[in-house]
Amino acid sequence: MNLPELNLDPPFNITRTSHVVLTVADLEASRLFYTEVVGLMVTEQTGDTLYLRGIEEACHHSLVLKRSKEPPRCERVGMRVLRERDLEPLKAFFDRQGLNTAWADVPHQGKTLHVTDISGVPLEFCASMTVVPRPLTQFHLHKGGSALRIDHYQILVPDVGKACAFYMSAGFWLTEYLSPGNSGEFAGVFLARKGNPHDIVFFKEKGPRLHHAAFAAPESFHIMRACDCAGALGFGKSVERGPGRHGPGHALYVYLRDPDGHRVEIFNTHYQAMDLEVAPVRWDPADPFRVNPWGLPAQRKWYQEATPFAGVELNEPAVRPNPVTLERYLAGDGH
Amino acid sequence: MNLPELNLDPPFNITRTSHVVLTVADLEASRLFYTEVVGLMVTEQTGDTLYLRGIEEACHHSLVLKRSKEPPRCERVGMRVLRERDLEPLKAFFDRQGLNTAWADVPHQGKTLHVTDISGVPLEFCASMTVVPRPLTQFHLHKGGSALRIDHYQILVPDVGKACAFYMSAGFWLTEYLSPGNSGEFAGVFLARKGNPHDIVFFKEKGPRLHHAAFAAPESFHIMRACDCAGALGFGKSVERGPGRHGPGHALYVYLRDPDGHRVEIFNTHYQAMDLEVAPVRWDPADPFRVNPWGLPAQRKWYQEATPFAGVELNEPAVRPNPVTLERYLAGDGH
Amino acid sequence: MNLPELNLDPPFNITRTSHVVLTVADLEASRLFYTEVVGLMVTEQTGDTLYLRGIEEACHHSLVLKRSKEPPRCERVGMRVLRERDLEPLKAFFDRQGLNTAWADVPHQGKTLHVTDISGVPLEFCASMTVVPRPLTQFHLHKGGSALRIDHYQILVPDVGKACAFYMSAGFWLTEYLSPGNSGEFAGVFLARKGNPHDIVFFKEKGPRLHHAAFAAPESFHIMRACDCAGALGFGKSVERGPGRHGPGHALYVYLRDPDGHRVEIFNTHYQAMDLEVAPVRWDPADPFRVNPWGLPAQRKWYQEATPFAGVELNEPAVRPNPVTLERYLAGDGH
Amino acid sequence: MNLPELNLDPPFNITRTSHVVLTVADLEASRLFYTEVVGLMVTEQTGDTLYLRGIEEACHHSLVLKRSKEPPRCERVGMRVLRERDLEPLKAFFDRQGLNTAWADVPHQGKTLHVTDISGVPLEFCASMTVVPRPLTQFHLHKGGSALRIDHYQILVPDVGKACAFYMSAGFWLTEYLSPGNSGEFAGVFLARKGNPHDIVFFKEKGPRLHHAAFAAPESFHIMRACDCAGALGFGKSVERGPGRHGPGHALYVYLRDPDGHRVEIFNTHYQAMDLEVAPVRWDPADPFRVNPWGLPAQRKWYQEATPFAGVELNEPAVRPNPVTLERYLAGDGH
Repeated sequence: MNLPELNLDPPFNITRTSHVVLTVADLEASRLFYTEVVGLMVTEQTGDTLYLRGIEEACHHSLVLKRSKEPPRCERVGMRVLRERDLEPLKAFFDRQGLNTAWADVPHQGKTLHVTDISGVPLEFCASMTVVPRPLTQFHLHKGGSALRIDHYQILVPDVGKACAFYMSAGFWLTEYLSPGNSGEFAGVFLARKGNPHDIVFFKEKGPRLHHAAFAAPESFHIMRACDCAGALGFGKSVERGPGRHGPGHALYVYLRDPDGHRVEIFNTHYQAMDLEVAPVRWDPADPFRVNPWGLPAQRKWYQEATPFAGVELNEPAVRPNPVTLERYLAGDGH
Repeated sequence: MNLPELNLDPPFNITRTSHVVLTVADLEASRLFYTEVVGLMVTEQTGDTLYLRGIEEACHHSLVLKRSKEPPRCERVGMRVLRERDLEPLKAFFDRQGLNTAWADVPHQGKTLHVTDISGVPLEFCASMTVVPRPLTQFHLHKGGSALRIDHYQILVPDVGKACAFYMSAGFWLTEYLSPGNSGEFAGVFLARKGNPHDIVFFKEKGPRLHHAAFAAPESFHIMRACDCAGALGFGKSVERGPGRHGPGHALYVYLRDPDGHRVEIFNTHYQAMDLEVAPVRWDPADPFRVNPWGLPAQRKWYQEATPFAGVELNEPAVRPNPVTLERYLAGDGH
Repeated sequence: MNLPELNLDPPFNITRTSHVVLTVADLEASRLFYTEVVGLMVTEQTGDTLYLRGIEEACHHSLVLKRSKEPPRCERVGMRVLRERDLEPLKAFFDRQGLNTAWADVPHQGKTLHVTDISGVPLEFCASMTVVPRPLTQFHLHKGGSALRIDHYQILVPDVGKACAFYMSAGFWLTEYLSPGNSGEFAGVFLARKGNPHDIVFFKEKGPRLHHAAFAAPESFHIMRACDCAGALGFGKSVERGPGRHGPGHALYVYLRDPDGHRVEIFNTHYQAMDLEVAPVRWDPADPFRVNPWGLPAQRKWYQEATPFAGVELNEPAVRPNPVTLERYLAGDGH
Repeated sequence: MNLPELNLDPPFNITRTSHVVLTVADLEASRLFYTEVVGLMVTEQTGDTLYLRGIEEACHHSLVLKRSKEPPRCERVGMRVLRERDLEPLKAFFDRQGLNTAWADVPHQGKTLHVTDISGVPLEFCASMTVVPRPLTQFHLHKGGSALRIDHYQILVPDVGKACAFYMSAGFWLTEYLSPGNSGEFAGVFLARKGNPHDIVFFKEKGPRLHHAAFAAPESFHIMRACDCAGALGFGKSVERGPGRHGPGHALYVYLRDPDGHRVEIFNTHYQAMDLEVAPVRWDPADPFRVNPWGLPAQRKWYQEATPFAGVELNEPAVRPNPVTLERYLAGDGH
């Protein structure tokens, strides 16, 4: 299969997934969920905005929740560049492709660039945040899933190949991908900057929509504890998929829906990916027990439901994907 | 609700769940499953019989697999009495109720009593087995779920109340039970001798059939590792339910189906139950998020499929149970 | 080696280790240590007395702390009998041997018998306690070592053989013991009622003194988390020995000293012990890498320091033990 | 304190710690230790050379063991560059400082550059290795510590400040350092390329010598299992320090000595370090309970013993360090 070209020398250095900004109806309900179940720490609350970070994060926020009376949306996903001087050439990269760009003033972030990517995803880039204490050794304060840090986003888009080519031209490595049979088409791609398998993941569906933000957890115990704390605190229905093991990326995972329906993944045990000689791993979704090595497939809504981006128009893929869902499995179909 | 009477002074001392005897089609396939996935150790194989034990067990066997060309069956479940002299009064207890009893000569077991219980379950009792090394500190040999020991059986019977009264009259403590609404009827009972919540569990369904044998695992990690080894070795479809958390009994669990379809549970973290002042815990199955505190319900076949006992006739319950299955949940019913 | 005789039919039924009563200087400091490091839950505080229990315990207390201006002492260790009617024959058992007995009125306990054992240890027995909620599924409230329940005591006495014979005559099983070379003498004994290796352990030293009370923890993770919470909260020096692995009993352990110097063990992964045909396991303390299978030996003070019982006279053993301490190891001696 | 300058734009891109080459007396003994205790996988053995890798590594080797009749040595530590074309400017960097450089032909590695660093450490750099399967999901084959990957080296040198300045000028980030009181001198430095706290660590002692190579493990359970497998296989004495928790870097660790006395660390739970606004963390070794947050200090030999590099002359530091060792602690000194 022909893979897009990786540009190893773009004139800017995007370093990692940084933060996600979500709107929510009830800030207290969300705070309870993200601190006691996911295990994030509150950095501060200012008015209608709650800033959270993982227990190993010394940056001001990796999750920003804003109270809103509108239906829940993702306002923006954020990435880091190494230095502020990376922002101008990054702006030029987007400008050259006729994509929206604008400078923004965002609290607790250095100079920030707002852009829209090739799929319509609203992104922001900055080089720095306010530094706060890293709570990693405040062990007595760690709760629920003890989320260490934000790791990646998964985004649904109608044209995965286009998104893949765009990010590879910006220096993202393709580490793994799903491609059905001999279609030559991408069903999903893992794109990485920080040296593990993923900073941003795209799957084919109506989009762009945020499928989930993923937080790394220390041990398999914490994945179970997140679920158990969810159960103890009345969030039992929020456990939508798993715990289970991914084929692609190899992570142990669980997916939860927050009080507004935003999806979050808590996962651990993937791998370091920083050697160019290792080819991207190809998966065929038609082989469900490679993609989902044990247990039941995900229910249909895991594939189809996602958070719209605020004010962004949705498009359907040319051909709708037809994954092996739990519903098909129980009907004796596709397994 | 009226609970049957507990006889604290029966003239015999049943100490614990001991072993289960299953027939299988392919001894090599079963051996792979039970050693690499469940993590049992092989004590020995003699002809068509394979004897296995958990990593903390110094007894000769807690699982006996016999090669058979017939459809897979459970031949018998076994329990221990403290001393051989407990066997005669135990025989008298069964004889008085007109139940079948017979002495048996079983390899690697002391004097053994065969009986049929009030529900038609074939049991055997013995006071001792051949002692073998306890492999608990052979850490480099521990595999898969690292099953520590057999813990309990779950058996489907049409009349749970009758089974409960029978075992309580033999000295089994009722620790937890499920009873719908104000029915005054038992949907399920946990009965215990060894000081934790269960040695034998009964649930209402066509029976008697063996729903599962349960093995305790050291840590939540081992529950995940059992699944992961299942996936790696081609047993991925065997993971039928979970990992999840039980309401009743509070255990973290996973259920797998062995190569013949016999169901096995690997679980950990329950509690000590040896104080008389603690009342049995009642659960209402109509409250699915107490009984199943997080995640999806079990699929229908988990409720309905089970292993027949060899040569034992099946009976239907007066009223079929109607649990909240995964199928009903996905159809929007009952949750 | 000649082992004392086990009386399997005493006229009373002691079921398990129940609780320990300690005096402390600063109730707030102790509360912080036992809740945040060990992970016990507070049942209640009344005046100068703090009652705690493990996360799986439905009984009112397994640890009682009393504020005192005197040097820290253990007032008493407690055990359970099955029924109140076990207490009279138990009193007779102690009376016959000329040991002190008295009825006592103890808050939140049923009828309570105070006795002094053959080594001078002050014990109390009761059949019941006030029942309180079992916090096992309040996962969001579990802290530090998440101590599940009290498991056993270790007591230093000058004559271990005498203690062993006394308890075996009361129905305690000898599961493991240490005996040097061909001495025919006991250096240490594990004595059990509840079906695991130990309810009460005796080692030879000046005594009687309480060496430690031991609490079971769910997973190896919790043993590390207890240490990490100790470090985070300024109790780092309290970690006296381990984490490490015991030869005898096979547990993964850590020993901490509480703010008054009382020693507590947090441990997991031992085994079920309820089969008579399994002989007690013998260990020779002269073989340090069997008794202590990896890592460094314990420092001298772990062997020699312990909590006196309130008002109880101390006696020296005929011959002082000479264990392979960390000090001897570093001096190149004895390993 | 004045920190050396970080060169963010060197004309080459060193990506990560890659591999270490050790000589050993008995290849079979080493193989047993590294596979069953550390949990590395054997890639292949060719004549007197054994190649191993971690369970998440798709590269041919991260540990190379060569049979030798000479006393055990470290031949070389290896690092990766992103592309082969990084090697020429890297050679020029060393050449300009009058340091030894040479091209080498190394099996299973791309074009390889041999150099000697500013402290006399023999290094090699390459851009690629033979790609082999990543055994991460062969869960049934994971053993002992289940070492995921090589993470970093710790090297003893007489002048830490000089080593620090040299590596920072080559693009290594200083993430943490130890500096006593107001000395303005470095006792230890953590230097990183791959986005976590360390690829190469220097501490002040007679050197250059390899103090240890460190491998990341998945969970705290695996740290304990490495020790337990060591104990079960007769390597119990090899556990030299820990398990414990580091202050600097925050990792949970254990140190073992392999059959030739080479030291290896197995650790987990550190943090991502890829934001420039986060200042290097300073530690004062005079505060032992910050540097070693709980438990006993390391014994003296942990500080002083290390593996010489083959054929490299040793130098003493101007002033010998005087750490708070276990020996000083037991003597009541320095804590």
